[in-house]
Amino acid sequence: MSGELRIIPVTGLAEIEEGDDLAELVAAKLELENGDVLVLAQKIVSKSEGRVIALAGIEPSEEAREIAGDDEDPRRIEVILREAARVVRVRPPLVIAETTHGFICASAGVDASNAPEPEMLVLLPHDPDASARRIRDRIRELTGREVAVLVTDSFGRPWRQGTIDVALGASGLEVMRDLRGTRDPVGYELHSTMIAVADEIASAAELVMGKLDGVPAAVVRGLEVAGDGRALDLVIPEERDLFR
Amino acid sequence: MSGELRIIPVTGLAEIEEGDDLAELVAAKLELENGDVLVLAQKIVSKSEGRVIALAGIEPSEEAREIAGDDEDPRRIEVILREAARVVRVRPPLVIAETTHGFICASAGVDASNAPEPEMLVLLPHDPDASARRIRDRIRELTGREVAVLVTDSFGRPWRQGTIDVALGASGLEVMRDLRGTRDPVGYELHSTMIAVADEIASAAELVMGKLDGVPAAVVRGLEVAGDGRALDLVIPEERDLFR
Repeated sequence: MSGELRIIPVTGLAEIEEGDDLAELVAAKLELENGDVLVLAQKIVSKSEGRVIALAGIEPSEEAREIAGDDEDPRRIEVILREAARVVRVRPPLVIAETTHGFICASAGVDASNAPEPEMLVLLPHDPDASARRIRDRIRELTGREVAVLVTDSFGRPWRQGTIDVALGASGLEVMRDLRGTRDPVGYELHSTMIAVADEIASAAELVMGKLDGVPAAVVRGLEVAGDGRALDLVIPEERDLFR
Repeated sequence: MSGELRIIPVTGLAEIEEGDDLAELVAAKLELENGDVLVLAQKIVSKSEGRVIALAGIEPSEEAREIAGDDEDPRRIEVILREAARVVRVRPPLVIAETTHGFICASAGVDASNAPEPEMLVLLPHDPDASARRIRDRIRELTGREVAVLVTDSFGRPWRQGTIDVALGASGLEVMRDLRGTRDPVGYELHSTMIAVADEIASAAELVMGKLDGVPAAVVRGLEVAGDGRALDLVIPEERDLFR
């Protein structure tokens, strides 16, 4: 894995709507090659799957009203609470929650930015690994190319400022590179080096995707990462997590 | 920032020793261009600065012996405790610590792998931002090129498996892109989007660097990230951290 990488933005995609065929739309914009990793922002995957909700119909619970206080829309908090399996931390109006999938992130992944219209929220896909698999299969069907697909989103982190992109869904790649048991040049065994390759690819792709550029997809070319990991494998099991 | 990126491994560097001129060694391996981001693994920066310590002379404290238990070398734990400003979590022999710089990471950044010899440990640079600045200045002096420099290391994360690379030192780039106050296509204001660009670049570079390939440096070409942030700015202030 010591060759050069290219990170290619997929430009010119129109606004995505429910039912859109993302594989077809991307394949029309650039020639995919075998071994490419296609990175798709969660936002467009969610929109294509109709995971969008209008604030208008939401009746906030007492808990949502309390967290929202005077400054925040309690209906938005209500949607967050519905998407959450567990609330991890609250500093009103900020809610860090564990989603039903097991991801721990701000607002349980619920986001108003880049929604199709005002007063709409975009939710995470129900099963982002399955979303990635579907899109990968569809690309094979349309183009004959064997690519990997990642669905990514921006997450904050404890201890560090700013967000980075991580993998929420994956198909066709090894999401972690396991170096345990291998040895360095002086013979020291690497005990615990598992590299979250899928998260690193997500961050790399974000560098060309940005938030406002209308570039919700990118291709990483030149990696050798074929495999069959799930992004959900990147969530640390509760019993091994010192910070749950 | 919607053009294509290239991530170029810097291959063929010899084992780094104290006093080595990293800028000169890298510049001899590839033609740097204005605007490049040169990413250097912390390990080689530390070695060039002599931040290497032999276990032989270390007398472990009682606390170090206790954490080490029967399976771990108490001298290694002693070095970790000396590099730590504060121990955050211990699950023997794993120690998560806040370093004197403020980084929170496993073993306070102390690492036996890829040390120059057995029974040696590599420590983090005293001031990684200053290390990056020195190397950047030296590259300008040697080549006339205006590049940015990042010093990076692999960190674990709460809630997610595996390590990703993050920025420990930076010079010549905007480490965070601040989108607060900007608006998305439907006019929604992005409240809290600060992107940790330097961490994303670190992860992107790791994809070609790996741990065992002898590729401790890479160049990211095609980004527009000139600025004057410090990597230390990526450490979240204690009062804003919900997880300290």
